[in-house]
Amino acid sequence: MSNDTLRDLSQNPLVQRLGVPRIPVLRRHVPGAPLLDGPALVGTVGEGTYADAVRALLENESVAEAGGGDVTGGKVAGVVLDATAARTLDDLAAAQEFLTPAVRRLAANGRLLVLAPEPGEDPEAAAVAQAFDGIVRSAAKEVRAGATANLLVVHPDAPPAALDSSVRFLLSGRSAYVDGQVVHVGVPVGPEQDPIGMDAPAEPVAPLAGRVAVVTGAARGIGAAIADTLARDGAVVVAVDVPAAGEALAAVANRTGGTALQLDITAADAAERLLAHLRERHGRVDVVVHNAGITRDKLLANMDADRWNAVLAVNLRAQLGINRALLEGDLLSDSGRIVCVASTSGIAGNRGQTNYAASKAGVIGMVRALAPRAAARGVTVNAVAPGFIETEMTARMPLGTREGGRRINSLRQGGLPVDVAETVGWLGQAESGGVTGQVVRVCGQSMIGA
Amino acid sequence: MSNDTLRDLSQNPLVQRLGVPRIPVLRRHVPGAPLLDGPALVGTVGEGTYADAVRALLENESVAEAGGGDVTGGKVAGVVLDATAARTLDDLAAAQEFLTPAVRRLAANGRLLVLAPEPGEDPEAAAVAQAFDGIVRSAAKEVRAGATANLLVVHPDAPPAALDSSVRFLLSGRSAYVDGQVVHVGVPVGPEQDPIGMDAPAEPVAPLAGRVAVVTGAARGIGAAIADTLARDGAVVVAVDVPAAGEALAAVANRTGGTALQLDITAADAAERLLAHLRERHGRVDVVVHNAGITRDKLLANMDADRWNAVLAVNLRAQLGINRALLEGDLLSDSGRIVCVASTSGIAGNRGQTNYAASKAGVIGMVRALAPRAAARGVTVNAVAPGFIETEMTARMPLGTREGGRRINSLRQGGLPVDVAETVGWLGQAESGGVTGQVVRVCGQSMIGA
Repeated sequence: MSNDTLRDLSQNPLVQRLGVPRIPVLRRHVPGAPLLDGPALVGTVGEGTYADAVRALLENESVAEAGGGDVTGGKVAGVVLDATAARTLDDLAAAQEFLTPAVRRLAANGRLLVLAPEPGEDPEAAAVAQAFDGIVRSAAKEVRAGATANLLVVHPDAPPAALDSSVRFLLSGRSAYVDGQVVHVGVPVGPEQDPIGMDAPAEPVAPLAGRVAVVTGAARGIGAAIADTLARDGAVVVAVDVPAAGEALAAVANRTGGTALQLDITAADAAERLLAHLRERHGRVDVVVHNAGITRDKLLANMDADRWNAVLAVNLRAQLGINRALLEGDLLSDSGRIVCVASTSGIAGNRGQTNYAASKAGVIGMVRALAPRAAARGVTVNAVAPGFIETEMTARMPLGTREGGRRINSLRQGGLPVDVAETVGWLGQAESGGVTGQVVRVCGQSMIGA
Repeated sequence: MSNDTLRDLSQNPLVQRLGVPRIPVLRRHVPGAPLLDGPALVGTVGEGTYADAVRALLENESVAEAGGGDVTGGKVAGVVLDATAARTLDDLAAAQEFLTPAVRRLAANGRLLVLAPEPGEDPEAAAVAQAFDGIVRSAAKEVRAGATANLLVVHPDAPPAALDSSVRFLLSGRSAYVDGQVVHVGVPVGPEQDPIGMDAPAEPVAPLAGRVAVVTGAARGIGAAIADTLARDGAVVVAVDVPAAGEALAAVANRTGGTALQLDITAADAAERLLAHLRERHGRVDVVVHNAGITRDKLLANMDADRWNAVLAVNLRAQLGINRALLEGDLLSDSGRIVCVASTSGIAGNRGQTNYAASKAGVIGMVRALAPRAAARGVTVNAVAPGFIETEMTARMPLGTREGGRRINSLRQGGLPVDVAETVGWLGQAESGGVTGQVVRVCGQSMIGA
């Protein structure tokens, strides 16, 4: 991939002497590898409720140090600040006092993770809660060499265990290309869960074991990576794509050990056929990944009904129909997870993509409306919004556009399909029931926003 | 100003032959000038409730044409689509059918304005509502030569008249640097208002006549422009700044015909002294503009308590104290308008600005918390978030940073202080009671987002 060529080039001593900045090689998840590749610092502002749970999680992970503000020590792989108790500007100042020496010690590919309260009704407390958004997004633009910074906003009633899967994701190599993001964690949806036993491994080798996951558009690109990644994590994967992609689809199904379904998701009976396949072959479904999508770019001034309707039909109408059938039926399990692939274009808009941006913004609107409906039965609905991801599609872009797209983010490179897939996997876990109605960008903190 | 130099340069025939794109000269408000400098097209999706009100507003404005989809005509200065009735993907397709030929006719410095519904509970309707966000943000990146595209999201119970001040603002030259933005309009706050008489001018020459407005940080830059603009629109302006800026402050007060107050807003008795001045000299206040702000940039890893606390004290703590005093007291009128100057840095974060971004994100959190509290007494609370604005501060930036900041927006230039001021003026009107808790970027649709 030419990304590698450029990376190699940037690490050439001559190029480095000329001042071209080194493109960091991101730490990505390897099964069996520890959560962090070094010690972590854990701090609190006031009476943080979550810091102990984070320390316990890190100890289970055999992370060497999970202490407080030992500011004289060496590099650390992770910095976690539990600021959920912060209410005042003095608390905010205390957060800075912890963060400054801690961030100074953050190693390459390190992780800065802040837990903040929801903005409540009190103006000062609401200001302080939102201030962490500004701090983390700024810090994400400052930390270097593949390090990331992210924020979890925590509902006041969320039990500590509700954060575990998200803390693990954001500290691990799974979140390599998730940077500068804000995710809300609430009380897990559905009926109350049994607490996870203390002897459960902190980072299960197969966090999706026993789960049936369906992935649309699975024959290639991001969809194939999602199928591979969910299968690696233990899921039985149902790979769906159009009949024309049958050969590639069969290859995905073969290597993941799941089943394949050739299906045009825009067909009138698509939802019915999909559910029939799931019922007959698997008897259930736990994770539904709406990944299939197309582009038909044209300026709005030159748009035609065919381009408009084709994009909306695949990217939005099909998802609406399948979700309706799933939520009306009984096939989706009571820890069901619907994950929709949106796009940064659906957040910020994009020149030449009114149809695509409409469909992807539409996905975001759909996710937010479905989340409260699905919560009662234990189902979460979330979106992932990829930024610049290295695929066949981006490889066909003109060089200038491609290079621009790759560079205008805090990690100075495009993401890989696996980065989107890992994010889908986190949201697909039964343990991620506290995360719903969210839009998580997988964009390396792309500058492009709204 | 060097912006003009660059603009001149870009309009040099030789430079143009070399392919340097022309930087559009934005249409800005001139008192007495019509709302639009040409005809407008007004369309609806289904039974739009607001289109008639928009047509009436435009007719009062003597806009030559305010008809439907006459797609064969010439250039138009404005395109307004009332899509508030859109619920289905078919409605969305109808919107595209109207927009494509309409946008093709949009003149230089034209205005595209879409009115969309709130995303409701129905998944398809919510998707469609959100889709307009993607459409408008994309279209804003497509329309050229100073044209803008913006979206008003309309609460289902908002009466048509609640939109008037916002429609006027977004069609007029006042919104020259507001592009790609989304503003929510609800039922006006406070007790029910008398309907505005039909003989009221659609674009009052003095929309702030009779109103007392206080502006902090008014001695120079954006604050001085706010003072000038509010005074031009009829307000009595109370100009506030630190004693060290006394001479410049006196000049502002003299030319605006208002009063000056030398005040360190971080002093313990600042709110008390401000309110005493307002009470003694003016007996009331209608518009409060929190503009005073400072930067003390430093990477988080090298941050110190002095820089942190100085920025938070001026940019956030002072606003919290003054707002508390205003909302607890009786000086703020029952059409009071609090407008806080935030920053795109508070939305997207910025390298070297964890303190500044914390303060400006904090302002946004404060605004959202105050809005529902203040609504009962008829007071709105909003934020404006400037992007790259040409001021003494930006003039001191290194050339590369400055040029980059100017160019990475859809209008390919920095904004002027008056662009922020006009936005403040719109939010300061008694007629803007349907707009509260909003953050309006004045950034030319800067790429930089979150």
